[in-house]
Amino acid sequence: MTVSATTSMAARLSSREDYAGLLDKYDTWLFDCDGVLWQGDKVIDGATDVLQLLRHHKKSVLFVTNNATKSRKNYKKKFDSLGVEAHVDEIFGSAYAAAVYISSVMKLPKDKKVYVIGMSGLEEELDEEGIAHIGGTDPEDNTLGSFSLATWTPDPSVGAVVCGLDTSVNYTKLSKAFNYLTRNPGCRFLVTNEDSTYPTADGLLPGAGTVSAPLRYALGQDPTAVGKPNRTMLDCIRANVAPAARGVGDAKRGHGVNVRLPSPADRHDFDPKRTIMVGDRLNTDIEFGQVGGLSTLLVLTGITKESEITGPNVSPTVPDYVTGSIGDLRALLS
Amino acid sequence: MTVSATTSMAARLSSREDYAGLLDKYDTWLFDCDGVLWQGDKVIDGATDVLQLLRHHKKSVLFVTNNATKSRKNYKKKFDSLGVEAHVDEIFGSAYAAAVYISSVMKLPKDKKVYVIGMSGLEEELDEEGIAHIGGTDPEDNTLGSFSLATWTPDPSVGAVVCGLDTSVNYTKLSKAFNYLTRNPGCRFLVTNEDSTYPTADGLLPGAGTVSAPLRYALGQDPTAVGKPNRTMLDCIRANVAPAARGVGDAKRGHGVNVRLPSPADRHDFDPKRTIMVGDRLNTDIEFGQVGGLSTLLVLTGITKESEITGPNVSPTVPDYVTGSIGDLRALLS
Repeated sequence: MTVSATTSMAARLSSREDYAGLLDKYDTWLFDCDGVLWQGDKVIDGATDVLQLLRHHKKSVLFVTNNATKSRKNYKKKFDSLGVEAHVDEIFGSAYAAAVYISSVMKLPKDKKVYVIGMSGLEEELDEEGIAHIGGTDPEDNTLGSFSLATWTPDPSVGAVVCGLDTSVNYTKLSKAFNYLTRNPGCRFLVTNEDSTYPTADGLLPGAGTVSAPLRYALGQDPTAVGKPNRTMLDCIRANVAPAARGVGDAKRGHGVNVRLPSPADRHDFDPKRTIMVGDRLNTDIEFGQVGGLSTLLVLTGITKESEITGPNVSPTVPDYVTGSIGDLRALLS
Repeated sequence: MTVSATTSMAARLSSREDYAGLLDKYDTWLFDCDGVLWQGDKVIDGATDVLQLLRHHKKSVLFVTNNATKSRKNYKKKFDSLGVEAHVDEIFGSAYAAAVYISSVMKLPKDKKVYVIGMSGLEEELDEEGIAHIGGTDPEDNTLGSFSLATWTPDPSVGAVVCGLDTSVNYTKLSKAFNYLTRNPGCRFLVTNEDSTYPTADGLLPGAGTVSAPLRYALGQDPTAVGKPNRTMLDCIRANVAPAARGVGDAKRGHGVNVRLPSPADRHDFDPKRTIMVGDRLNTDIEFGQVGGLSTLLVLTGITKESEITGPNVSPTVPDYVTGSIGDLRALLS
């Protein structure tokens, strides 16, 4: 592999030897999904072959997505429908990470609730962790009708507001969340992720970060974010990944109130030095890898354009490696 | 009047002589409304008496509001319902200022349209200025149904997106606006105002700035804001106020495509040195006055708390004068 002057310090991969070197160097492969494995409902050419190749070589394969609209179980269905092999235990979404954070790090008392701006996937993950919640998909809060504080009875047990991508976000939800955050003492402000945009097959739409942006603006306060690029997501993976990395499959474990963040003893088979994060977005995927001390591989099938890693306006976030598409690793099959 | 050390450099008014000095010093009195003249649907004690007193002394009285949910005509109805004398020509709202800005400053070509995130008041002001618009109150855009770029036909003639407070804001409107701003070449991003919160009789709700916050976040770009504290609002008033200041009343004039920003000759009866802005919010009203070279009077019946102008965490924005309530000027009647 060669380090090209035009790609700053990122090594541009292109030959069979380049990819063989990568295969040799990393045991654990973390993949973003949208823009890396698929674009909308279309699998990236060669992605399934490459995942099979990695599994054949006994690599741990994990999927790390900021998509909080689906629970891990429902995200698994997406993999199935696209014919991409995955096990629930290999899938880490920001909704799951948020739920784990609330129960294990925040340790929200059992008599407290979460007010949700988000979709069913986020609610399902909260349910799995045994966290009481209101808002979310409740029809009463999914309305464009007017909202009045005079006729609203706030719930004093709300101890946190959590926001994920919510395509039904509206003024009633925002007003309730704002008032919980300003009136309930100690109420915490969490977001699953802060992606500014959401890629679809037909172009970009506003991302999860735009759902919490009104609250951020009204409060003049930044939320705690758990998804990529935040360390919280990696902590959540490392607390739960060891059995999955050994190929236990879908057996349910590590869920519920017993989930904890990793003690050093749990980390033996997740060596950052032998782990690589593969992603399409510099300010989520690549930063996430770098924050966690992982190596990083940028693919150009998603958000990031070639011009952001070459040319005069190059991003300050530089991945270790760049390749056009994850499918390029098929060179190893020839 | 005395300059108190605890209020930084703001002069605290309290005696009949203090208010008489003010009356003598200023010919033009600009008033914010919410939190100054009324709170929700309750008129501030003594406000109507004080306005009558000012009119009796041949002062020009103008109302300058960032509320963009109502047109000037409908805002007049609010005055009427509360029994506060006002003429349409004395009322300047940020919706009106936005419409004037689009036609007179931006000079949006007549074959271009505006995409509106806002309510009927904003649409009415655009209509008055002869500006074509879509979105806004259109039932098609007021939905919590899903939005897909695949089935949407964008309008290539959209040359600006304008956002005001919109309690029906939703993902479809935000998605369309985001795509106009990223796909239509030269499409401008305007907001009526950037208030973070909206005061009601029962407490605060998210303000107009929270409606545009998702776009600001997704685009990584700040909009052009026309309402207080921006100079644009004052330019709009000065272009239109001269006849109103002479008491012409409600006669329609200065509207339409002929509205222009002031030439120096138009400014003769609007002397900043003899003009005072009365408001309850430091970062809109008081800054607005200061940006325009006006004197400023803070009242404490709205957003700003005593602690923001005294004590250790005093705001850097210091009004010239402070009084508890506009009603205090009734001392002049005794």
